[in-house]
Amino acid sequence: MPTFKARLIDITTGEKTVILHEDDAKDMVVRVNERVKLKKEINKIVALIDISNTVVCKGEVGIYEDLLSEFPVKDGDLVEIQPASTPTSVEYIRKKMAGAPLVKGEIYSIVKDTISHSLSQLEIAAFLMAQHYVGMNMDETEQLTRAIVETGRTIDFGETVVDKHSIGGVPGNKVTLIIVPIVAQAGLKIPKTSSRAITSPSGTADTMEVLAPVNFTVDELKKMVVDVGGYIAWGGSLNLAPADDLFIKVEHPLSIDPKSQMMASIMAKKMAVGTSAMVLDIPTGKGAKVEDFESARRLGNDFIELGNRLGIKVRCGITYGNQPVGHTVGPALEAKEALETLLGKGPNSLIEKSTSLAGMLLEMNGIAGKNNGQALAKDILRSGKAYRKMQEIIEHQGGNPDIKPDEIPLGEKRFIIPAPADGYVSSISNSAINAIARAAGAPTNKGAGVKLYAKMGYAVKKDDPVLEIYAENEQKLKCAQIIASRKQPFLIEGMLLEELPGF
Amino acid sequence: MPTFKARLIDITTGEKTVILHEDDAKDMVVRVNERVKLKKEINKIVALIDISNTVVCKGEVGIYEDLLSEFPVKDGDLVEIQPASTPTSVEYIRKKMAGAPLVKGEIYSIVKDTISHSLSQLEIAAFLMAQHYVGMNMDETEQLTRAIVETGRTIDFGETVVDKHSIGGVPGNKVTLIIVPIVAQAGLKIPKTSSRAITSPSGTADTMEVLAPVNFTVDELKKMVVDVGGYIAWGGSLNLAPADDLFIKVEHPLSIDPKSQMMASIMAKKMAVGTSAMVLDIPTGKGAKVEDFESARRLGNDFIELGNRLGIKVRCGITYGNQPVGHTVGPALEAKEALETLLGKGPNSLIEKSTSLAGMLLEMNGIAGKNNGQALAKDILRSGKAYRKMQEIIEHQGGNPDIKPDEIPLGEKRFIIPAPADGYVSSISNSAINAIARAAGAPTNKGAGVKLYAKMGYAVKKDDPVLEIYAENEQKLKCAQIIASRKQPFLIEGMLLEELPGF
Repeated sequence: MPTFKARLIDITTGEKTVILHEDDAKDMVVRVNERVKLKKEINKIVALIDISNTVVCKGEVGIYEDLLSEFPVKDGDLVEIQPASTPTSVEYIRKKMAGAPLVKGEIYSIVKDTISHSLSQLEIAAFLMAQHYVGMNMDETEQLTRAIVETGRTIDFGETVVDKHSIGGVPGNKVTLIIVPIVAQAGLKIPKTSSRAITSPSGTADTMEVLAPVNFTVDELKKMVVDVGGYIAWGGSLNLAPADDLFIKVEHPLSIDPKSQMMASIMAKKMAVGTSAMVLDIPTGKGAKVEDFESARRLGNDFIELGNRLGIKVRCGITYGNQPVGHTVGPALEAKEALETLLGKGPNSLIEKSTSLAGMLLEMNGIAGKNNGQALAKDILRSGKAYRKMQEIIEHQGGNPDIKPDEIPLGEKRFIIPAPADGYVSSISNSAINAIARAAGAPTNKGAGVKLYAKMGYAVKKDDPVLEIYAENEQKLKCAQIIASRKQPFLIEGMLLEELPGF
Repeated sequence: MPTFKARLIDITTGEKTVILHEDDAKDMVVRVNERVKLKKEINKIVALIDISNTVVCKGEVGIYEDLLSEFPVKDGDLVEIQPASTPTSVEYIRKKMAGAPLVKGEIYSIVKDTISHSLSQLEIAAFLMAQHYVGMNMDETEQLTRAIVETGRTIDFGETVVDKHSIGGVPGNKVTLIIVPIVAQAGLKIPKTSSRAITSPSGTADTMEVLAPVNFTVDELKKMVVDVGGYIAWGGSLNLAPADDLFIKVEHPLSIDPKSQMMASIMAKKMAVGTSAMVLDIPTGKGAKVEDFESARRLGNDFIELGNRLGIKVRCGITYGNQPVGHTVGPALEAKEALETLLGKGPNSLIEKSTSLAGMLLEMNGIAGKNNGQALAKDILRSGKAYRKMQEIIEHQGGNPDIKPDEIPLGEKRFIIPAPADGYVSSISNSAINAIARAAGAPTNKGAGVKLYAKMGYAVKKDDPVLEIYAENEQKLKCAQIIASRKQPFLIEGMLLEELPGF
């Protein structure tokens, strides 16, 4: 077997890759993106091939950082190399691409090879594109979910836990900060792990972080569930579904989110923490992830069936997704509005949405009778007990439990956009609001975001404020203003949309 | 704008990429696979982001080799960097992914951004997968072809030239070595550029290389067309359709070959050399690229229509693709069989196939009357004039024109596989023959390959030789034998296929 001298290359590529000299690759009849088997004493590994004429000399093999943990070598060590066949899971990906359903072992093989970086990003992309175009049936989705759970870490809270999840896509959706304390106050255990924003102006973890730290060890989380009944933490460092993180890394640049993968991703994270019941919020409307009721119902029923198969009771709430939830978008602005709502001063739509979803969880677990869940949730909210539970949660997470809504720092650079005409607000663009808030600096700048003075159906007079941009510096405020002038976040019935040039 | 110190990273990645430190990426709110704009004095470029904590320090930017030609910097130079939006062509790729047809400008934008490495491999993969699943109509395919031609080099031979092309997939298809001298002898100009094998045991360029060099400059090729009327050269170094090479680099690991991309790829290379008429060989049968006549006819008609739009007359021959062409597979074995055929000693099926395709070209260009093409081609072949034209071609390409078929060196390590039973050969597996020949060392080892003593319908007696493996070393011969025993290249009617275990 040909022997090569190792040369360490101090770069992390995210894939198991080695660099061969072009001449050596020719001799072995291997090409870029094909694979070689490396062997040093008892250690063996399979890696993808990069080719270079300069980084390595003929007879050398460049070993990237990513390989060292599983294949420890030192500069100058001798390594045997020969062409390797592609992993069997690539065959299963091709089978799916050709339109055939996969069986359990095939799906597990793909997920395992994803985790071990044995599949290249292009091969993972092929798997996801096949899911996007061909789809997966419920058996496949179930196995995909189980494979993601089994290749990750699980947390056993030692008792029944519940959860809520939103499909997402609607700005300003701070309902988690209201639902968790209501549900925990009612006696249920709700260990809520959330994500940070990827493409939105604020993930729930970003919003909660305004009030308290969100990054905890598993032991700390377990203790909080026992002591307080719940938390709102960031799930990213818990390694609950590492395969899912790798899939998302490829989905993002491709701008795809295949339904089967999305369902498996959500349910795997619930299953990994032993969730017994969950309520799913499906915001539906133009600019949300789900645009019509028909699709929302189908998606909801699929979640219910998948939940049944996995032992998780699921109820789905289809919610109004045509405009932002509440009146604020951005971490600090949303944290402030959530706290105001817990204090009894929130907008009605936010109270209705939060208590209806919380109420479902109370009914599912026998805390409330059928159709009485929302009333009980409202009682808990109005009584101030949900606010005091939130104070407990903030305190246990290491924040200041006594912070008042007005003490939350907001961006100092502000700009008010006035109504361009008299009339009724006939539509608000979710994507424009998202883009403005992102341009203003959210979620990185916690104080950045957008406040809506009017929502759909409101009557406004010309020059009334309809939207206020908050930023932490002038440059980003300018940038957000430009986006706002280009993207028309508000349409007002009767306003002149555009004057054609040429007069 | 934030300023970074350049650090040159001597690696070629095939994409325009820079390395940022993790902290800097966080500060700029950019992630792996997103893009940054780099600026140094008047030079600007957009690059994809890799992230590392070790290769670059905070405040440094790692500049890969691939960037330097368009963005020359030295170690330590100061470079301004800010987040960049994705190229507009990514929007067009998403449009195609969503199922919509693309217009000319959109397709050109994708092809240009592919050439300039502005699109990442994942984005190119998304474009190809969308073509695979969504498809492209004829307008799109035409524009794709034109865009590939216009972003590459073209060769003007100054007169009318013709070509032949095979869709491929059938082993042993050495017909080009017989067609080109017939057609050139008849007075047509046939500048034949061919590819090397990617997944097959021998590409036409590999086979021709046994007889003469195949790598020439454009000026040398032009001179050969004037002096001899044709050549059989390798097209790989001519840069005729550089976009296509980049698409193929992504198609290969994905194992896809979308019809629209395949048609554009073939026709772009013909258009780039000013082809006015071409004959297309569509081998059809189990194990060939096209498996049934219905698909072959549809594909042929699509090529004819695309040709019409591009000003290239196309005739298609659907040929028998259920078994290898002739009796040999592998560069030297095929070159030998082609030479024997030119000398009047070839197998009948090879003569029929070659002369029928050559005849079409003669008819299309008025050299032969309707339905007289094949007869004329056979005359030219039988008269020995095609052989003497091939000698001229070999001589002009720098080979030995007087080489006799028996002087061509073949692999010395050989193994004969006998018939396992009396009976008729009922099928021969193209994929098994390919795999055996590859394992034996073809195409890298020119003398390696496979010789078939029997073809479909032949009557054989038990222990008659049916197949001989040629290799240049013992190890590869062994390897090919193992593949042969596993893959059953021949089925003989009446033979025991398998004995079930358990007796």
